[in-house]
Amino acid sequence: MSSHHIVRDDQEPALIIANGASCSPELLGQLLEWSPLVIVLDSAIDRVMELDIKIDVLLGDFDRDFDPDHYKEKQYPLEIVHTPDQDKTDLEKAFDYLYEKNFSAVNVVWATGKRTDHTITNLTNIVRYRDKLKIVILDDHSKVFLLPRKFEKWYTANTPISLIPIGHVSGIYSENLFYPLKGDSLTIGYRTGSSNHVAQDGLVMIEHQQGDLLLMECTD
Amino acid sequence: MSSHHIVRDDQEPALIIANGASCSPELLGQLLEWSPLVIVLDSAIDRVMELDIKIDVLLGDFDRDFDPDHYKEKQYPLEIVHTPDQDKTDLEKAFDYLYEKNFSAVNVVWATGKRTDHTITNLTNIVRYRDKLKIVILDDHSKVFLLPRKFEKWYTANTPISLIPIGHVSGIYSENLFYPLKGDSLTIGYRTGSSNHVAQDGLVMIEHQQGDLLLMECTD
Repeated sequence: MSSHHIVRDDQEPALIIANGASCSPELLGQLLEWSPLVIVLDSAIDRVMELDIKIDVLLGDFDRDFDPDHYKEKQYPLEIVHTPDQDKTDLEKAFDYLYEKNFSAVNVVWATGKRTDHTITNLTNIVRYRDKLKIVILDDHSKVFLLPRKFEKWYTANTPISLIPIGHVSGIYSENLFYPLKGDSLTIGYRTGSSNHVAQDGLVMIEHQQGDLLLMECTD
Repeated sequence: MSSHHIVRDDQEPALIIANGASCSPELLGQLLEWSPLVIVLDSAIDRVMELDIKIDVLLGDFDRDFDPDHYKEKQYPLEIVHTPDQDKTDLEKAFDYLYEKNFSAVNVVWATGKRTDHTITNLTNIVRYRDKLKIVILDDHSKVFLLPRKFEKWYTANTPISLIPIGHVSGIYSENLFYPLKGDSLTIGYRTGSSNHVAQDGLVMIEHQQGDLLLMECTD
């Protein structure tokens, strides 16, 4: 088994492997290498077992005729977290678990693809963890995270950047985007900032006054 | 080539093949069979050509070093619609095209998967066509459409039903859902109605007073 356990620094983000479409082994491998804790959600464990990786926590409501203890020996030591609460998704329960364990950041894979309802719920529900966890959702085409009120990051020219408002977002200003925002408002379903890109090599600045704004770095 | 052209009744929905992940040939075949008009978006034509189907319209901004005339002979007769407007997505331009041609309904495939920004934009932007077109977005796991103020449809027991608010939706009432809604409000990112299901064989009724509510029928 590959041992991501060599590095044990809780300042690095934890990794959640959710239950959507699998990503490339390369992406998963990169994220595993630095992750101090790996959580797998529910029946995704079946696909994870085929990949010969060591995980730390198996979390879910296990409501599909599914015996989590079956994996205890093969993944020893493995913590099983049974979360029957139907008011939250397994992904939210995993965020809650990490918050309680004092993690401050998490990467999430396999959270997109397959069922559209799960994809849109997983992507948009991260906004409610604004003050609790720094969450990044990744797949083979996309990297998605919630923007702080003021965001700055160095990008190369032409990097695709999409700004997706979760609800209504106002007072948006940008620097170094090809289609600049100058106090604009964005509203999901009606006006979004999809398919923008970086104007030139250098810092991109994005500021917003109100609302929840996701940044998506996506490539074909 | 399979000839979906046998049936030419403009009361049937048109079909748009967008530029996300391909669906199963079975789903595409079912939709092609009844479709009076098939529109392909931009460079998706390369993947469509491999499937040996006849299309009617190729629409896009063709901004990627791409020559649409190359396909004219192989798909004769083929209408090429060049839409350079950067304020709309190709999918929205295809909706506008159909509206102008007096179509009232359209099915959309390949609009999800791959880039997350395109997926979320394609799914949520259908709300602005509420009074123009009946739009259904389909992939191998999902069927998504905007609900009218009052919706009724017969379903078998346990059919998964997710209600996703695009923004804020209030005054929601349901009948025959396992988790009933009784004047509830839903807000994207904060409270969604994902992962509900039909209580028993029969009519499901969903009513809402304000806002844009998507219904998603999804299966693993």
